[in-house]
Amino acid sequence: MLLETTCGRGQSIFAFLAPPRANEVRVKIKYTALYHTDVYFWEAKGQTPLFPRIFGHEAAKVVESVGDGVKNLKPGDHVLPVFTGECGDCMHCKYEGSNMCDLLRINTDRGVMIGDGKQRFSKNGTPINHFLGTSTFSEYTVIHEGCLAKIDPSTPLDKVCILSCGVSTGLGATLNVVKPKKGSSVAVFGLGAVGLAAAEGARISGASRIIGVDLNPKRFEEATNFGVNEFMNPRDHIKPVQEIIAEMTNGGVDRSVECSGNINSIISAFECVHDGWGVAVLVGVPSPDAIFMTKPINVLNERTLKGTFFGNYKPRTDLPSVVDMYMNKVEKFITHRVPFSEINKAFDYMVKEEGLRCIISMEEKLLSVHN
Amino acid sequence: MLLETTCGRGQSIFAFLAPPRANEVRVKIKYTALYHTDVYFWEAKGQTPLFPRIFGHEAAKVVESVGDGVKNLKPGDHVLPVFTGECGDCMHCKYEGSNMCDLLRINTDRGVMIGDGKQRFSKNGTPINHFLGTSTFSEYTVIHEGCLAKIDPSTPLDKVCILSCGVSTGLGATLNVVKPKKGSSVAVFGLGAVGLAAAEGARISGASRIIGVDLNPKRFEEATNFGVNEFMNPRDHIKPVQEIIAEMTNGGVDRSVECSGNINSIISAFECVHDGWGVAVLVGVPSPDAIFMTKPINVLNERTLKGTFFGNYKPRTDLPSVVDMYMNKVEKFITHRVPFSEINKAFDYMVKEEGLRCIISMEEKLLSVHN
Repeated sequence: MLLETTCGRGQSIFAFLAPPRANEVRVKIKYTALYHTDVYFWEAKGQTPLFPRIFGHEAAKVVESVGDGVKNLKPGDHVLPVFTGECGDCMHCKYEGSNMCDLLRINTDRGVMIGDGKQRFSKNGTPINHFLGTSTFSEYTVIHEGCLAKIDPSTPLDKVCILSCGVSTGLGATLNVVKPKKGSSVAVFGLGAVGLAAAEGARISGASRIIGVDLNPKRFEEATNFGVNEFMNPRDHIKPVQEIIAEMTNGGVDRSVECSGNINSIISAFECVHDGWGVAVLVGVPSPDAIFMTKPINVLNERTLKGTFFGNYKPRTDLPSVVDMYMNKVEKFITHRVPFSEINKAFDYMVKEEGLRCIISMEEKLLSVHN
Repeated sequence: MLLETTCGRGQSIFAFLAPPRANEVRVKIKYTALYHTDVYFWEAKGQTPLFPRIFGHEAAKVVESVGDGVKNLKPGDHVLPVFTGECGDCMHCKYEGSNMCDLLRINTDRGVMIGDGKQRFSKNGTPINHFLGTSTFSEYTVIHEGCLAKIDPSTPLDKVCILSCGVSTGLGATLNVVKPKKGSSVAVFGLGAVGLAAAEGARISGASRIIGVDLNPKRFEEATNFGVNEFMNPRDHIKPVQEIIAEMTNGGVDRSVECSGNINSIISAFECVHDGWGVAVLVGVPSPDAIFMTKPINVLNERTLKGTFFGNYKPRTDLPSVVDMYMNKVEKFITHRVPFSEINKAFDYMVKEEGLRCIISMEEKLLSVHN
């Protein structure tokens, strides 16, 4: 199949996409969105630069064809791709609460399909690498069945595409991991889409104080739409964030969710929770050489530190119900929409920290010479 | 009241003990035991050397008299003193799961009673400092009511005295905090009395693999009596402990309990739990300048780090049921018994790492010239 794709900003090309092999599904992308991770690896800040590569992982799609052994999907099914999978058979998939599938766990270094270690994309015989097993900046893509969550066909794909990564990650971090009680206090570090989803999770849980922490005061007004009702800009204070929050909350917040990935913010997010019962969860991914450091007494005083990955949702099992629960509320995350032909604008918005999510519609292609 | 006491090894003296004031209770010590914390502060390794001071905090006692406002205890009641208290009114006492009472939380730097900031012990008019609010190396002592758990009078005091600190701490770390599932694997770091109690908690929970980690191979045989069924001496390996345990357990243990207080052991205990679901709890207290360090990815991969203090038991509320549940099993922790006149032998056993607990009977005093 000849199709249009992009290997990063300004590199739109026509490429060949092979049919799906065993346990794989070829899908037509309807909508995709740009996420920090795409930009991070496109800028080659990730561990292993692997070019040429087709980025993109937040999307909504329709199944075009299926390979041998695919049991749960058929052409025409509506699906969300997930950057991490659920094989259903490994000990993680069988363990309640874990979603770190042994077979299909996120691997940012892998540019090939897991079945045969080869790419499905190519141009003039030269393979083009996959990204996160999804590569959604393309008209069509091939994905392992275990990385596709089937959703109700009546679901608006132009909205729920953003539930395939960041928003679910933030929601799940709060709803599944730190689980704030009614009337409790929650600090959210980093007010991008993930952090705002975490804040909304806190609001859904009934938290009464939701403190948003961000270096960018422009984010604060928007954050009120997601339940944040107090703000804290670390730049406004000389003392460490955790001390300011402890002063604001009589000893610390009940829960905190760290979505910025900044290592100092990670340490603050842990140390700002109340002793005796406070729980902090890390969501944001820092640079690989960052080190988390704290005095053991901060742990011993009955604080809990957790980490989460995709909000602890099992992609295939849990995502359909997240879509059902949240699809009517995702609109407010969508601040920009562009056709595929203007995908570079999405990169600009992201780099300038303008808005939250830019939906890229694949209906309007860069060059419409094929079909 | 004139009584015999000791301000540390070899310093037995006669001292005066004032009557209990408001919310205080004067108790007669029947049995006490020596614990690492006593030795640590007697050696002045703790933050604030505060001499003269009467050590001791693991004990069993009978109430002699009560001060004004004491509601729940009367002369003749059998009690266990606890180094941390439960006022019953603060937000920690009211919060299910926290036992870090605002009023009576452990304070190793305080040598006075909390009511009036003064000592009850003195000699020739010179005050003698209290230790952990308990000071049980004495015929009698004065303790805040909130630091005394009332127990059934039929309970054998010569055994359950060791439930007032270390053994409950270890048991609770497993039973209340990491809660291993049936058939799971648990690593216990440090096979002293606290670690062995943690191992027994794992056995009670139905864990099938209980891996004891200690630098002292002499501990291994004894540990089998507490449920430990595999052993690991870090000195036998070149690789870090966490890597060896991951190899032994197909990726890591389900739970770990750190009871040594060594900072490297603390880091290993966290990093040796399985991603996706592993939970590590810190029990042992390292030196104040130690720093816990780990790569954030170890957290992000869905590991949980917790800290506990007295096994998360609320001293007055929970200790009576711990005594009921466990009093028939404590005998195996008691490896030595000495009269008060030979308390220095208990110090020797502790320093030489001989045995687990040495019970000091207060019935036989150093000099019996008074009564």
